[in-house]
Amino acid sequence: MLTSGEKIYEFAEQLFPICRSITGEGVRETLSRIRTHLPNLKLHEVPSGTKCFDWIIPLEWNIRDAWIIDPQGRKIVDFQVSNLHVVGYSTPIDAEVDLAELDRHLYSLPEQPNATPYVTSYYKERWGFCLPHEQRLALRPGRYRVRIDSDLKAGSLTYGELILPGHSNKEVFLSTYICHPSLANNELSGPCVTTFLAQWLAGLKDRRYTYRIIFIPETIGSITYLSLHAEALKERVVAGFNINCVGDERVYSFLPSRAETTFSDRVAQHVLHQLHPGYLKYDFLDRGGDERQYCSPGIDLPIVSIMRSKFGCYPEYHTSLDDLNLITPEGLFGAYLVHIKCLQCIESDFRPRITVYCEPQLGKRGLYPTLSGKESANAVKIIGDLIAYSDGRRSLLEIADRIRQPMWELVPIAEKLCAEGLMLRE
Amino acid sequence: MLTSGEKIYEFAEQLFPICRSITGEGVRETLSRIRTHLPNLKLHEVPSGTKCFDWIIPLEWNIRDAWIIDPQGRKIVDFQVSNLHVVGYSTPIDAEVDLAELDRHLYSLPEQPNATPYVTSYYKERWGFCLPHEQRLALRPGRYRVRIDSDLKAGSLTYGELILPGHSNKEVFLSTYICHPSLANNELSGPCVTTFLAQWLAGLKDRRYTYRIIFIPETIGSITYLSLHAEALKERVVAGFNINCVGDERVYSFLPSRAETTFSDRVAQHVLHQLHPGYLKYDFLDRGGDERQYCSPGIDLPIVSIMRSKFGCYPEYHTSLDDLNLITPEGLFGAYLVHIKCLQCIESDFRPRITVYCEPQLGKRGLYPTLSGKESANAVKIIGDLIAYSDGRRSLLEIADRIRQPMWELVPIAEKLCAEGLMLRE
Amino acid sequence: MLTSGEKIYEFAEQLFPICRSITGEGVRETLSRIRTHLPNLKLHEVPSGTKCFDWIIPLEWNIRDAWIIDPQGRKIVDFQVSNLHVVGYSTPIDAEVDLAELDRHLYSLPEQPNATPYVTSYYKERWGFCLPHEQRLALRPGRYRVRIDSDLKAGSLTYGELILPGHSNKEVFLSTYICHPSLANNELSGPCVTTFLAQWLAGLKDRRYTYRIIFIPETIGSITYLSLHAEALKERVVAGFNINCVGDERVYSFLPSRAETTFSDRVAQHVLHQLHPGYLKYDFLDRGGDERQYCSPGIDLPIVSIMRSKFGCYPEYHTSLDDLNLITPEGLFGAYLVHIKCLQCIESDFRPRITVYCEPQLGKRGLYPTLSGKESANAVKIIGDLIAYSDGRRSLLEIADRIRQPMWELVPIAEKLCAEGLMLRE
Repeated sequence: MLTSGEKIYEFAEQLFPICRSITGEGVRETLSRIRTHLPNLKLHEVPSGTKCFDWIIPLEWNIRDAWIIDPQGRKIVDFQVSNLHVVGYSTPIDAEVDLAELDRHLYSLPEQPNATPYVTSYYKERWGFCLPHEQRLALRPGRYRVRIDSDLKAGSLTYGELILPGHSNKEVFLSTYICHPSLANNELSGPCVTTFLAQWLAGLKDRRYTYRIIFIPETIGSITYLSLHAEALKERVVAGFNINCVGDERVYSFLPSRAETTFSDRVAQHVLHQLHPGYLKYDFLDRGGDERQYCSPGIDLPIVSIMRSKFGCYPEYHTSLDDLNLITPEGLFGAYLVHIKCLQCIESDFRPRITVYCEPQLGKRGLYPTLSGKESANAVKIIGDLIAYSDGRRSLLEIADRIRQPMWELVPIAEKLCAEGLMLRE
Repeated sequence: MLTSGEKIYEFAEQLFPICRSITGEGVRETLSRIRTHLPNLKLHEVPSGTKCFDWIIPLEWNIRDAWIIDPQGRKIVDFQVSNLHVVGYSTPIDAEVDLAELDRHLYSLPEQPNATPYVTSYYKERWGFCLPHEQRLALRPGRYRVRIDSDLKAGSLTYGELILPGHSNKEVFLSTYICHPSLANNELSGPCVTTFLAQWLAGLKDRRYTYRIIFIPETIGSITYLSLHAEALKERVVAGFNINCVGDERVYSFLPSRAETTFSDRVAQHVLHQLHPGYLKYDFLDRGGDERQYCSPGIDLPIVSIMRSKFGCYPEYHTSLDDLNLITPEGLFGAYLVHIKCLQCIESDFRPRITVYCEPQLGKRGLYPTLSGKESANAVKIIGDLIAYSDGRRSLLEIADRIRQPMWELVPIAEKLCAEGLMLRE
Repeated sequence: MLTSGEKIYEFAEQLFPICRSITGEGVRETLSRIRTHLPNLKLHEVPSGTKCFDWIIPLEWNIRDAWIIDPQGRKIVDFQVSNLHVVGYSTPIDAEVDLAELDRHLYSLPEQPNATPYVTSYYKERWGFCLPHEQRLALRPGRYRVRIDSDLKAGSLTYGELILPGHSNKEVFLSTYICHPSLANNELSGPCVTTFLAQWLAGLKDRRYTYRIIFIPETIGSITYLSLHAEALKERVVAGFNINCVGDERVYSFLPSRAETTFSDRVAQHVLHQLHPGYLKYDFLDRGGDERQYCSPGIDLPIVSIMRSKFGCYPEYHTSLDDLNLITPEGLFGAYLVHIKCLQCIESDFRPRITVYCEPQLGKRGLYPTLSGKESANAVKIIGDLIAYSDGRRSLLEIADRIRQPMWELVPIAEKLCAEGLMLRE
């Protein structure tokens, strides 16, 4: 049932060229492609002007083309080549300007002279172009033709939502961004990995928890979604992940929830500690994405992020260098697997309580390995340690941390002990 | 309104020559000089023999003159030159003694041969002289004339008390010593700095808390004061400082309360960490002053000490070397400022609660800096972090520690947010 | 009243040759020798087949002789030389076998070629011999005569129990093993030290707590005892020690209870920290003895172990090298003393509360040392620190840890203060 890294990567390649923003046709196009993998994904439209807590859904932005033509008549900056060349939410323009005027509308990075920056201006109307700094420096005085064929008008904010029912109405929540244009690690990796995680979850024959998976634009999307569903989420969500920056092959990163010790925090750190012990642990002060909304006072959802290279912490971040060369099938697949391990831990956790006083006689039940040796001694040790801490107060996850074993080693043992009547699920 | 270090230092120079002890005219003279700066200071007299918990107010001690005349008729030790030459609370003597007898009444420091030690004998009657060890070694056999013109009779223990009313009857408590003769860091620095802190507090147009400021002799003074006011103090005091050893320019020192985590402990450490991160943190086991009484079982006031060179921990301590050369305007002023910062933190602390779900839209309220750049990014970060933790459970002080910012940076932001209706004071 | 290390060692020499196992005459013989020191020791017999929680008392095993005779007619392995040569609980055999067949019943240690291992097979019937690996390698093909004159039949499990009543029916529990044959550190040291600890306790004129001291076979013995007495133990036991591996002179070891912070844990670590600060602190995951039963979920007794070289952690463990050369009078006596210190701490602990506000005037009560100097200053400091923390919330043990003094320094001071009416026992 497991997907491969190649499939995730191919999906990223397919979505990469689409010009996404926090609203508009690019978002709809992206969601419709995701729906090819998740037929039950529902698309929702929230009209411009809708009040969401302290915010208002902005006008919808769409763009068809944009370019700069130099005094010699050459098209030197072209939206068709890269959608990063236009400042997101640029108002339309069609004018001839001299270099000084043009320059006031240009954005570039002196420290990364061959990279085009990713710039947006959602809440202040302006127009602008982004380009490599070395190209900007080479511009000569003269008259330039500039054209942005965009419009900014009443429409709606679009998001996708998939509910996968489980035995319990308690929920696990997955959220990811669909507002970034042609950028790869931050952010096509998030929706691509989440799509295949959702597919894996949809294929499970038995789900303990209900899964709520949303594909939203960052910030305004989570605020919008919370304004509609905060009470349900607060009541039901037991754990959740804001999935983003999961595509490259560099070191894993962990961003805790504001509360720092929720079920999600403990699961994520257990899995990372077992699988990738060199992971970087950030502070909630290092936050920057939708954890800002999900963990805000009064909302307080147990949402964490497991990332590869964290937003703001890698040189290609928010530039044209964050492209399909930065992410890899292996990078995407690693993050996908780590999230699956987390979801499996969440699904299989419970508070075990041993039903007999003193150690049970395992030999007579065939729970002792028949072959002796170092490996079997270790297996016996794990059984003994699991039993010793199965006091009805600790969960399997807590026991796993205490006895320094991966939780997935304990689950089959606990199931055997339950089947033998030696253990109860509290 | 801030005083200068020079003014504090000049006041120390003025008080230095007065011969203070735990009772007597030197205390009254000192308090009357303090009253020139604090006209509302009230002097209280508690008669000798009064029972105070397990203690009894001793007889009052006064001294007019004292000297030793050597066999050659030279006045070799003279109270008029330094009041440290006489053991505090010495009984009167007027006699001719040989060197052997005299030597039984001499006190000196072999390890610091040119310093005169500070010695007292409050609760056992004796007489004695203090002198440099090198002078003592040079004494030749012969008949010496010794004279101490003192008296020890029923009188009273004198202390000063200033109450500065605030909006609340909850109190902040400041206590300092007025029992040391000509000694500078320990202790004229305490009453001098406290005098100007009280003056600053008296000049505040708005006080949230009531301030109780006392000038007392060490140990017997605090026991006496507590025997009169313990219940009121236990009910009202939210924070307090035992102000002593605040005059030299060496490293700051912190002595916690017995409880270790009171409001005073947290405020003092926050301020020291922000302003003087290299400060020395002592243990309550290193105590030695009136924290012994204020933090005793059943009293348990939240009293801490912020010092420069801590009593018992600098070479000049309790010797004639602890003189006006050891303390400086800068040293006194630094300690004065640290205490003012603490009092400001106490006055301005509250539990903020954000009134909207999710992050508020700061842009539309002009709470985003208009100029961008590193500094403004930092300012935005502080606002965001303050809001993120304003959950009604943490105080501003706790938030400041959590987000690693000085509390005084948060106060004006919190006020702006309250004014915008985005924040409530819980 | 203190015994000497020589007496403990001589007792170990006397018990060493007896062939003990988890049942049988060796156990009875051992207990009858212990009874010469502890006349009130009661012997209990629990019949084979009795159900004890998840376990069943096995058949009783006795052995009279055993040997291997080689093809040349030489007795090459002889139970009379060392009882370690026979696998514990070996079924009887009397046969002639060739080398290949014999070899399937031999146990040796390739890594320690001159040591005979200690091997048992309590719950699976088999026969076997243990011998040095170098001897095994030298065996030549041919017919061997093997004989084990043992029997395995319904009988009983034997254990000893001594109850020493105290003023309180709350109990201190000591448990030790009597199931190891000729092995010295693990385990004759345990019952030998425990015998003399019990003798010391029996000689105390005043016992605050009731002492329950048991001499049992490991695992099945503690499970049996708990099956009979768990409810009483759970209600009454305030502290306890599983005494084993207390005979050599190497570093002290500490094994905590599962709960990690019981009274026993705190006492043991206080004593070790004060007397042997270099001790090794193990984790409960390193357990292996009867703490597995005493600390199991639902039993949860406050039982810890203070050892010298811990089981499983020294090269001679479970081999013929763990002999009377490994343990010494000094080693045994050191462990004996550490346990006595622990028992004294347990007996003398209480929650002191000072009866006066502020520091009491110690001078007038003669509680200040009359001679001054460094040592007396330290004594004054200890009195002051004890008083400062005698707030009725902390026990003497907790205060001792807080003020970094051995608890036994505080006990006589606390008694003096109680006698003066300055301190109450809460």
